[in-house]
Amino acid sequence: MRIGVVAPSTPIRREVAEGVTELAAREFAAASLVFHPQCFLTHNHFAGDDKARADAFVEMANDSSFDALWFARGGYGSCRIAEDVLDRLESPARDKIYLGYSDAGYILGGLYTAGYGKLAHGPMPKDIERDGGEAAVRRSLAWLVAGDRQSLEPGLSAREPNAAFNITVFSQLLGTPLQPDLSGHVLMLEDVSEHMYRTDRSMFHITSNPNVRKIAGLRLGRCSDVPENDPAFGETEEEVVIHWCEKAGIPYLGRADIGHDSDNKVVPFGI
Amino acid sequence: MRIGVVAPSTPIRREVAEGVTELAAREFAAASLVFHPQCFLTHNHFAGDDKARADAFVEMANDSSFDALWFARGGYGSCRIAEDVLDRLESPARDKIYLGYSDAGYILGGLYTAGYGKLAHGPMPKDIERDGGEAAVRRSLAWLVAGDRQSLEPGLSAREPNAAFNITVFSQLLGTPLQPDLSGHVLMLEDVSEHMYRTDRSMFHITSNPNVRKIAGLRLGRCSDVPENDPAFGETEEEVVIHWCEKAGIPYLGRADIGHDSDNKVVPFGI
Repeated sequence: MRIGVVAPSTPIRREVAEGVTELAAREFAAASLVFHPQCFLTHNHFAGDDKARADAFVEMANDSSFDALWFARGGYGSCRIAEDVLDRLESPARDKIYLGYSDAGYILGGLYTAGYGKLAHGPMPKDIERDGGEAAVRRSLAWLVAGDRQSLEPGLSAREPNAAFNITVFSQLLGTPLQPDLSGHVLMLEDVSEHMYRTDRSMFHITSNPNVRKIAGLRLGRCSDVPENDPAFGETEEEVVIHWCEKAGIPYLGRADIGHDSDNKVVPFGI
Repeated sequence: MRIGVVAPSTPIRREVAEGVTELAAREFAAASLVFHPQCFLTHNHFAGDDKARADAFVEMANDSSFDALWFARGGYGSCRIAEDVLDRLESPARDKIYLGYSDAGYILGGLYTAGYGKLAHGPMPKDIERDGGEAAVRRSLAWLVAGDRQSLEPGLSAREPNAAFNITVFSQLLGTPLQPDLSGHVLMLEDVSEHMYRTDRSMFHITSNPNVRKIAGLRLGRCSDVPENDPAFGETEEEVVIHWCEKAGIPYLGRADIGHDSDNKVVPFGI
């Protein structure tokens, strides 16, 4: 299996690519990893300017020699190129697996809207830098190469389609052409580094959306590295999510094993 | 003119109410200010719990003895009560002027959607604490009491309806029942204390919205207290806004004299 790696938001260091390539060579003989040179570009906040990032994504997505396209990392920047990228995808792009999370959600959302069938929310190469990060990368590779069910989020619904997003990213694609129709889905959400008042505001936004009000239920992943609220917000992330689910009439289905950490599990979109 | 003051988000100190009351007594004989006791409540992040804030707003809005309802300050919290408040408003609420900005935008957006005709984006009592803040408060009182045109944003369109919002707040009401139809409007936007990558993300969100793509044009107020981006974002707020306007085919009409500061001018919604 040939796996292409691109960075539609922010760059990775070459050591990250080398570490992931070595891990794959050691443990996944079936995997052949190709990091696009664009992953190492820098332009202001981004891994190259908008054109460089879009071109790299389109080039690998439209190349039928790749079986999967793996987002190198999150950060910020996919939304700047998502619509341009989607406009330029051709038939070889439809057969691929796309795997990533966090900022990758803009493109995953747009691909899902466009009917792409092999999308998943899960660990990315950059996660190798976390404590225990090799396990996260291994989990993604095992799923990519062999569809290993050990890699999957353990509570995936078998009856309803699943989807997973970062709270802030999902909030900020609502009402745009990237917003997928999630009616009937179990929606899993996680976040990182957001004040609790921001998470509360995003959950207002998400649960007030008419399409989101048609989901089968919502499961909450981890919200990590939450900066201190001043004054104290007085509610945990789970209390916040339950509050908004109740107001919106959305079933709250408990916690999900996803987040910005090395325990993050794979959530394939759909059934 | 009787002006009621409520705080749908965060509390003010009694000294703020006293200072604004004294200024009004000194300079605006026609104004009679009533600060609802709810303005001084505290509950976690908020000026009282959701019920206390909603009840105070509804009580004053439905009281025909008040001619105007003035938001005490911004912060965060209006979105938690906006829909409940709107459901409970009765006919006396329709005849009032509503004035505020920042977090007040959730309720102003909902009122505009519901056809309320006397809404404005402008300085609030809490602004008296800014350097030169008396001028801001005076500007709002002069407009409330006498419709003083000196208080108005100098570039208001006479041909198209105007509207003004905080960038983050407006982004986070898109796709909810609080989103007003702004087709044909000149939309003014400002923000405070947001990293430039967040402003960029919000502008993606705003300019990708199908209804926003029907506005007559966009004018940019001030973006103040922007925390340093790491790495440097490399674009100013005006470059960011022009980038997204061009991508979306929205005419960029230049700067607007609004912002989180004592120069903030009054923008009445509509013609």
